[in-house]
Amino acid sequence: MQTSIATVSLSGSLVEKLHACAAAGFDGVEIFEPDLIASDHSPEEVRALAGRLGLELYLYQPLRDLEGVDEETFADNLRRAGATFRTAQRLGIDLVLVCSNVATATVDSDEVSADQLRRIGDLAQEFGIRIAYEALAWGRFVDDYRRAWRIAELADHPAVGVCLDSFHVLSRGHDPAAIEQIPAHKIFFLQLADAQPLSMDVLSWSRHHRKFPGEGAFDLAGFVRHVLAAGYDGPLSLEVFNDTFRQTDPGPTAVHALRSLLWLQDALHLIPITDAKPPVGFDFVEIKAEDTSEVEVLLGQLGFTPRGRHRSKPVSLWTAGAARVVLNEQQARDQLPHVAAIGLQVPDADATSRRAAELMAPVAYRRTYASEQPFGAAIAPDGTEFFWVTDPPDGVPAWVGEFRDGLTEAPGAVHRIDHVNLSQPWQTADDAVLFLAGIFGLSADAPGQLPGPTGLIRSQVVRTDDGAVRMPLNVAPQAIDAAQLPQHVAFGCSDVIGLARAARGAGLEFLAVPDNYYDYLRGRFGLDETLVAELRDLSLLYDRGPGRDGGHFVHFYTRTVGSVFFEFVQRFDGYDGYGVDNAPVRLAAQRPRRS
Amino acid sequence: MQTSIATVSLSGSLVEKLHACAAAGFDGVEIFEPDLIASDHSPEEVRALAGRLGLELYLYQPLRDLEGVDEETFADNLRRAGATFRTAQRLGIDLVLVCSNVATATVDSDEVSADQLRRIGDLAQEFGIRIAYEALAWGRFVDDYRRAWRIAELADHPAVGVCLDSFHVLSRGHDPAAIEQIPAHKIFFLQLADAQPLSMDVLSWSRHHRKFPGEGAFDLAGFVRHVLAAGYDGPLSLEVFNDTFRQTDPGPTAVHALRSLLWLQDALHLIPITDAKPPVGFDFVEIKAEDTSEVEVLLGQLGFTPRGRHRSKPVSLWTAGAARVVLNEQQARDQLPHVAAIGLQVPDADATSRRAAELMAPVAYRRTYASEQPFGAAIAPDGTEFFWVTDPPDGVPAWVGEFRDGLTEAPGAVHRIDHVNLSQPWQTADDAVLFLAGIFGLSADAPGQLPGPTGLIRSQVVRTDDGAVRMPLNVAPQAIDAAQLPQHVAFGCSDVIGLARAARGAGLEFLAVPDNYYDYLRGRFGLDETLVAELRDLSLLYDRGPGRDGGHFVHFYTRTVGSVFFEFVQRFDGYDGYGVDNAPVRLAAQRPRRS
Repeated sequence: MQTSIATVSLSGSLVEKLHACAAAGFDGVEIFEPDLIASDHSPEEVRALAGRLGLELYLYQPLRDLEGVDEETFADNLRRAGATFRTAQRLGIDLVLVCSNVATATVDSDEVSADQLRRIGDLAQEFGIRIAYEALAWGRFVDDYRRAWRIAELADHPAVGVCLDSFHVLSRGHDPAAIEQIPAHKIFFLQLADAQPLSMDVLSWSRHHRKFPGEGAFDLAGFVRHVLAAGYDGPLSLEVFNDTFRQTDPGPTAVHALRSLLWLQDALHLIPITDAKPPVGFDFVEIKAEDTSEVEVLLGQLGFTPRGRHRSKPVSLWTAGAARVVLNEQQARDQLPHVAAIGLQVPDADATSRRAAELMAPVAYRRTYASEQPFGAAIAPDGTEFFWVTDPPDGVPAWVGEFRDGLTEAPGAVHRIDHVNLSQPWQTADDAVLFLAGIFGLSADAPGQLPGPTGLIRSQVVRTDDGAVRMPLNVAPQAIDAAQLPQHVAFGCSDVIGLARAARGAGLEFLAVPDNYYDYLRGRFGLDETLVAELRDLSLLYDRGPGRDGGHFVHFYTRTVGSVFFEFVQRFDGYDGYGVDNAPVRLAAQRPRRS
Repeated sequence: MQTSIATVSLSGSLVEKLHACAAAGFDGVEIFEPDLIASDHSPEEVRALAGRLGLELYLYQPLRDLEGVDEETFADNLRRAGATFRTAQRLGIDLVLVCSNVATATVDSDEVSADQLRRIGDLAQEFGIRIAYEALAWGRFVDDYRRAWRIAELADHPAVGVCLDSFHVLSRGHDPAAIEQIPAHKIFFLQLADAQPLSMDVLSWSRHHRKFPGEGAFDLAGFVRHVLAAGYDGPLSLEVFNDTFRQTDPGPTAVHALRSLLWLQDALHLIPITDAKPPVGFDFVEIKAEDTSEVEVLLGQLGFTPRGRHRSKPVSLWTAGAARVVLNEQQARDQLPHVAAIGLQVPDADATSRRAAELMAPVAYRRTYASEQPFGAAIAPDGTEFFWVTDPPDGVPAWVGEFRDGLTEAPGAVHRIDHVNLSQPWQTADDAVLFLAGIFGLSADAPGQLPGPTGLIRSQVVRTDDGAVRMPLNVAPQAIDAAQLPQHVAFGCSDVIGLARAARGAGLEFLAVPDNYYDYLRGRFGLDETLVAELRDLSLLYDRGPGRDGGHFVHFYTRTVGSVFFEFVQRFDGYDGYGVDNAPVRLAAQRPRRS
């Protein structure tokens, strides 16, 4: 279907927005009136620019507070509508959005509103224009698409139809099934936005926290299915009011936005996007720095085996079971240790590569010599590189053979990468969710918040359903530079207590956990003294899952090197969390001391 | 009354928080359990530190999800409560907060909850502790203070009383009058927070957007009056969950917090704070820069008269009627033009000075030579200096006589300073409202938002009721450095159109207003062609007030010099706004061009 976006969804001037939409590959746009008013381009110039860029101008919006008023007010409203139609005509746009009256409605009557819409329709026709009537979720009298359609139907005018907006329908919990009763030729336009359930007042929710499809919790595919069943075949248009997108470069936002429509059309089987299965596990984590020796010491203390250096690059490999850590000193001048790349094992790497390209993922390039393992590769919105290979039959990827002069690994307590926590700049956090969900088929948990000593950290986990791949995405509070929020890699263990004891013997410096925490643990969970003493002795943390079958969790942290630290975790009895209740203790302990 | 604050209201470690509270002058604190758990100080060390700092430890909090449960769960809860009482005992605290059950309550019965509270009370008594039961606004069954009191009354136990929290009562719209029915000796504690009406879900509202008394819209004085009428004479304790205070230096936040309790006690006539009447007008605005000549050219084009240089400082004065602009080049090395100080005329400068000192305003120091005018002076949270003098009988302050070798002013179109718009760092915006409201008796309008091309600007006006002094406080979006958001001074005129024409003749460069704006204006308000043509010709903006008697407004902007621009406004027929609907056009026009 045709793809479109409302200019209000992007930042910048109208001209910049049009360029960004064209560059991303949208078919067209809705022009938001205030964007035109503030533009130094006349309507005719905007129309000509859109033509040169190959963008359709689908809709001009919005006309507000027109209907459901007394006759004196309506006369003024009709004059106002005429001025807007004149502008739309100059833009070459034949469709204008009319929102249900929020501010000035005094007459709660379908007949009066229908009569006034009909007269607005008569006026619109003189300009060659049609009007799409939309029920805003906070409309004074009309706040339900079913009533908006009833009024439009009563108006019975060829220039009067409805606009459906997923936000206004789903945020109110209205059943979208009745959309199918609306004749296709009367659905003049379709606007799409996703959202997380916030249950703040619906106006603030709508104005600040809309998201692109795939980033929220709405069943957008289900919604659009009803609209398609009604016979609608116009554009799919995004109208996403969001405080972040208002501030960030419109170029990447437009790509991000179009990706969400591709994702949605894929979910509806409207376009052929390759079906790639989700990853079956982590392949590796790459830590990059000018000098990785401090990380090597840590890994050695934690029982990892050095497997040698790569045959063609200044890169070394450390492993512990299926946990593979690649240390990369190539082109890393002045860089402190950080998570630079994540490798995933997928059922079919070629399929994932095709899917990534079809979803416009930027490609990551790595030099690969003959006979070395090729990887599928893409760059996530925060700059982290993702690589993928086909799940090797014996679990060990072929590229491990490219490392030489290493030791042979003996079995130990660490088995696998449990999760990788990536800190996100606030600008790209939503985009990252869509990127990882769209390309790798991960699903996003409900977002949460971690109270740190200097602010709240927003956190959202993307993961496979079976938990084989889990990535919490953390966003720093405003006062903290995103680069100061460390990332971490958590390794799954079979005997985390034994591992901690051995690591201490090897000289590992643990994160300092305050004594008060252990007094609290005992009281909170009624743990026995022996266990508490052991946890306290080894600076281990403990958590329990919800309910009586939530399992429990024992974990510990290393100190931070560069912007990375490591966590070692053991999940008992199906524990499915991340020890978030311990995050305040960890965050306080990690905070640099003010001396 | 005694003053107190919950440690959760501040950022940093528990030790840092205690130092900040003591330095600000609080009598005591509530210890928030997670702050203790994350602290490297044992309960005994915290107790000793508080003792050395002269801080009472009034309350330990919170115990959650205890009552209204089945007996098996209750047995575990009782064990958990015991551990908390033990910790409170080690802290030397004899009062523990028990919040109404949110998560685990399954029994909706006053009798069951009362019985369980009674047994918790028995246990508490063994530790020499009392419990204060509080209805959370989102409690599962108990979400109203009246029900919490009914349960505590039924429990009928000397160690069981209630805690009242203004947020939980007022956010739900509950009538606080029934507080007076609670016996004083059963009100164990009082927590205070203010808030703006947000109507998001009450949990998010409470967790992120509480404010200190005087910064929100709650009638806190009325609330506390009921509590005092009940006979309560314990501490007034602030519990303010706020995303900003979690991130900012606890030292200034603690001062800010204590100021809010002084303000509140003053409003209740509980402490003797000098009653200073609000300002009657602006005295001057001072613009500071290493080189102010560019500002001088602008003022000259706008009809201001140079009144000469100060006899003892590198400072000059420009006036237009009662609009006085002081240009200060003293100690301004490398500084671009910015609003450095605001002068106010008050009914009694000595009274305002006493009030400022009593409300802990930091003093601004300026060298004053013999026979020069002394000013009252204070530094606002964002660093702007405020000065005040007693309203001079003839309207002209004596200090004008300290300027020499200037010209004599002829009457012109500009008459006065209409408003001064101060951009605020997000860290100090709430503090600024309390500071200006508390010291000068200004009142705060409801906060709003201005959509700019690169993000939403938060805006809140503080003003006198008669409009003689108005200061919009603007907060930049996160992506923009606060210093990049310009400030402006708006001057009131009797003939803004004539002024614009004269200024253009004098070579003034106007802010470029797009042509589309004038097409929109005509359509929006049905203005006649002559007026639209005149507005368009002179780059003037237009607005109309709400309803049919809102008056109208004509205004224009200069370009920005340093971080200041000027606005010239004319209010017609009682127009009381600031042309905020035109802000998007202004903000787009002011945006630096990407070339």
